[in-house]
Amino acid sequence: MIKTIDPYGSELVKDYQKVIKDFGLEIFDSSTFLNPNKVMRRGVVFAGRDLKIIDRCIKEKKPFYTLSGIMPTSKEIHLGTKLVVENLRYFQEQGAKTYILIADLEAQAARGVSLEEGKKRAMNFHIPAYIALGLDPKKTVFYFQSENKEVIHFAYEAARKITLNEFKAIYGSADPGRIMSAVTQVGDVLYPQFEERMPGIIPVGIDQDPHIRLARDVVNRMKDKKFFPPSSIYHKYTPSLDGSMKMSKSKPESCISIPEDDKSVRKKIMKALSGGRETLEEHKKLGAEVEKCMIFELLKQHLVEDDKELERIYQEYKSGRMSAGEIKQLASEKMILFMNDFNKKLQKAKSQVDKIRFVTF
Amino acid sequence: MIKTIDPYGSELVKDYQKVIKDFGLEIFDSSTFLNPNKVMRRGVVFAGRDLKIIDRCIKEKKPFYTLSGIMPTSKEIHLGTKLVVENLRYFQEQGAKTYILIADLEAQAARGVSLEEGKKRAMNFHIPAYIALGLDPKKTVFYFQSENKEVIHFAYEAARKITLNEFKAIYGSADPGRIMSAVTQVGDVLYPQFEERMPGIIPVGIDQDPHIRLARDVVNRMKDKKFFPPSSIYHKYTPSLDGSMKMSKSKPESCISIPEDDKSVRKKIMKALSGGRETLEEHKKLGAEVEKCMIFELLKQHLVEDDKELERIYQEYKSGRMSAGEIKQLASEKMILFMNDFNKKLQKAKSQVDKIRFVTF
Repeated sequence: MIKTIDPYGSELVKDYQKVIKDFGLEIFDSSTFLNPNKVMRRGVVFAGRDLKIIDRCIKEKKPFYTLSGIMPTSKEIHLGTKLVVENLRYFQEQGAKTYILIADLEAQAARGVSLEEGKKRAMNFHIPAYIALGLDPKKTVFYFQSENKEVIHFAYEAARKITLNEFKAIYGSADPGRIMSAVTQVGDVLYPQFEERMPGIIPVGIDQDPHIRLARDVVNRMKDKKFFPPSSIYHKYTPSLDGSMKMSKSKPESCISIPEDDKSVRKKIMKALSGGRETLEEHKKLGAEVEKCMIFELLKQHLVEDDKELERIYQEYKSGRMSAGEIKQLASEKMILFMNDFNKKLQKAKSQVDKIRFVTF
Repeated sequence: MIKTIDPYGSELVKDYQKVIKDFGLEIFDSSTFLNPNKVMRRGVVFAGRDLKIIDRCIKEKKPFYTLSGIMPTSKEIHLGTKLVVENLRYFQEQGAKTYILIADLEAQAARGVSLEEGKKRAMNFHIPAYIALGLDPKKTVFYFQSENKEVIHFAYEAARKITLNEFKAIYGSADPGRIMSAVTQVGDVLYPQFEERMPGIIPVGIDQDPHIRLARDVVNRMKDKKFFPPSSIYHKYTPSLDGSMKMSKSKPESCISIPEDDKSVRKKIMKALSGGRETLEEHKKLGAEVEKCMIFELLKQHLVEDDKELERIYQEYKSGRMSAGEIKQLASEKMILFMNDFNKKLQKAKSQVDKIRFVTF
């Protein structure tokens, strides 16, 4: 029997239970780690791999690391990225050494963004944005993929550890560009262990699990046991505002990016799928279908820090005392506040970007 | 009708004609370039790609380059490598900018030679050996693959230009390690054009043609026409001394490496397949089967500079006036002289290796 992984019973739960089973993941719940953050407490983080070793590092204050990559393509970031940074920040606060790599090689290869342009975008937006979202720059090591020869050299070794069929089994398909990127990411994920063998945890969306599996397979094939296989945690997608799919730029009217201006935020939230009933009368009588409400998802995943406040909103809406219009109003106010706060912090981080620690090679 | 490609009618000719047809190569003959060297004059160089543009560069003294790679694995080199260096030297003398890359990344990935060890081997043997074989170090640019970020960055781009099926069509198979190495070699082959667009010619054994084809395919797919597709020339294999296959370390008693000591050289040559007849009487009557003689191949490909001298030996042996014992004696004397000369030049080159020009990145 699979444990419930979302206390608020979002409709997508069944799919995530299937994912856990199919991918052989461990269930993540709010008791997995000490002092869980809000997305951990609320089942937004729903699964992981090799979690015990990280738990032990946290409890015993042993060295471990957390790591993520920035693809410096667009000039805004995704709400899913906000979840990643929230988890990075969590591990950073629990004592993890924190690494952020800028995947400029991949941005060039996959999206035609020149290394120069990628560097500029990272310095002018992505890195300050991660700081604005709460990473402590003094405790974070940044590096550019294209400059990290050690990672690239390791990629050549990693490539020898897997066959084409194994690669296809993990990724579904294989083409030379994808193979190059994937083995380079294995190097990225293990890079903090090049100098010091220690466990590491990579917070990702479930769509990134192939990279984790590949890295774990490569590590497990190295005879010298030089590395710990990377641990991982997975957060759920933020759904698109119409509830039809995961939030994606391909459906811009149902997608909120960071940053986004007040007017646009308000307009999009007002049109979102709310779980409200056909008529106000019916709504008051039956209460909202909160499990279908994309607004509540936004509040739960992104906008409400305090669990009691969230519970209050849930009960109000569920009971029908709060209308769909009211919950939308509440969410758009909170989102606008978030954006304003983000923009202020972004400006401040930008002015300090020259003080950031980059690894040089 | 295919032109004859070997004036001495070696038995392997038919195979090489098939190769030319199957691979879509141009036939190379002694009139292709000005002042051909001995292996060009004698049909050891038998085919090429895009030769006219190189011919024009030579005649019109326009910039072009020649390039080869060193895999710093073993502590000796192959007679086939001697042919490559002879052709590099030819183009260098015709005005080509000359580049030698040390494929240390590949040596690490394919053979487990650490980058440090690879560098040591290259400095202590392979680079001095290339100089001992006639490359002018003052006119040659050396670089280590692992240090050349531009080449590696380009490899990521190159990988995006080919599909897995195209890769398989060229190489027969595809695995991640091979793909990484191959696209890196595309970067290597084009590297001299990163700064200056100019034709280049790569002298290789026919087994290296897949790399040339891949590089040409990648170049032809780049919309900006930034590069000339690399030209190439192909030399025949030096056959193993028993005539059964190409000379290879897998059959050490039929393989002469550089360097090799006098005793071993003499012993191996004395046992080689000679094209001599069953009895001396028969030999005198019928003459030698020179086309089956591995000793004559050695003289032709490696040991006799002067065409008239080679022709004299051919006639003497063909007519039966020279015995198998005598031609073996002649070849082993010449090979021993060559080895002694090589060793002397190697020592000299080693003492000057600190003056070599490396590109730094």
